[in-house]
Amino acid sequence: MENKLALHIDRNWVSPYALWAYVALKEKRLPFTVKSVDLAAKQHQDAAYENLSLTAKVPMLMHGGFAVAESSAIIEYLEDVFPAPAHPPLYPADAQQRARARQLQAWFRSDLMALREERPTTVIFKAPEPKPLSEAGRAAADKLIRVAASLIGEGADNLFGSWCIADTELALTLNRLVANGDAVPDNLARYVKVQWARPSVQAWVKHEA
Amino acid sequence: MENKLALHIDRNWVSPYALWAYVALKEKRLPFTVKSVDLAAKQHQDAAYENLSLTAKVPMLMHGGFAVAESSAIIEYLEDVFPAPAHPPLYPADAQQRARARQLQAWFRSDLMALREERPTTVIFKAPEPKPLSEAGRAAADKLIRVAASLIGEGADNLFGSWCIADTELALTLNRLVANGDAVPDNLARYVKVQWARPSVQAWVKHEA
Repeated sequence: MENKLALHIDRNWVSPYALWAYVALKEKRLPFTVKSVDLAAKQHQDAAYENLSLTAKVPMLMHGGFAVAESSAIIEYLEDVFPAPAHPPLYPADAQQRARARQLQAWFRSDLMALREERPTTVIFKAPEPKPLSEAGRAAADKLIRVAASLIGEGADNLFGSWCIADTELALTLNRLVANGDAVPDNLARYVKVQWARPSVQAWVKHEA
Repeated sequence: MENKLALHIDRNWVSPYALWAYVALKEKRLPFTVKSVDLAAKQHQDAAYENLSLTAKVPMLMHGGFAVAESSAIIEYLEDVFPAPAHPPLYPADAQQRARARQLQAWFRSDLMALREERPTTVIFKAPEPKPLSEAGRAAADKLIRVAASLIGEGADNLFGSWCIADTELALTLNRLVANGDAVPDNLARYVKVQWARPSVQAWVKHEA
């Protein structure tokens, strides 16, 4: 009981960061519970949550009495504490591919702001956004497509031969366009479809707690 | 020659992300060259730079023919490829402390926007900003101080007993206030002073290429 895992996420199930941490737990085949946090009611600013998370952010993972927030830190922690081969890996075995995966992860969290604002994840989980992309949104979409096309070969299912967490992150980011009906090259749309069908992602879509 | 290291940074030496990658290389005791990129002249958008970095961002590390951008990915790559004990570690040995370090790193890159805007690193490297913090800037500063105070014990030199890269990152973030003359609790100001005196940080301050 001491080492139970619990993932604290936004109650609307629309945070990409929460999805990525959730998928990491699923892919590791770890049993965990989901605790939903009402951000609108500022539950993340309650003293108890703030004391545990330090930074009052979601997602937050509890592992026994230990708490860690920030999706990238949660993912690295799971890879550290539940390593391959006992658990499926979240990162490629090759150091350069691992570095590229982490570069993409950091990039999705720090860039492409116009795309993230004009195509929020609600276009995937709730309803499309009819408004066309602004010039800045289009530029961000073009940059994303350029980078993805340089990494995803024709007909490839994954970035690096077999799945890693950066695949789910890239697929979600591309899905901001695909799910909305914005134009995306065929092989990237196909890649998104393959990634989105993974049981770990579908469990999130179905809000499996 | 094949495996030479080169760090591409902003030519003004004011990027916190470039500083953190630079300090990581110095702390690993690795020889490397510094390549300066003129962001104002959009050198990072040159085709050659874009092809290498993928995302056209600085800092970027070259290791032989391999390129990786994003400071957090650079730091993890160095820890992967030049591990302890042959090279000094960048992260704590304990998995929970390592997770906390990575949480802080992700937090410095994704939050505290008002503080980062109102107290840019030029207040450390060039000249203070006389304008008082706005309400949002004050709230971000208070949050930073609360989190730092919860982690830095009275008289402690480091977050986790011995130095890790999150110490340099936290010290720089606190130094946005300290260097500017904004109020910071004594033990945190002392912590910043200790961290800022590290040879790796002083080499950056002196622009040692």
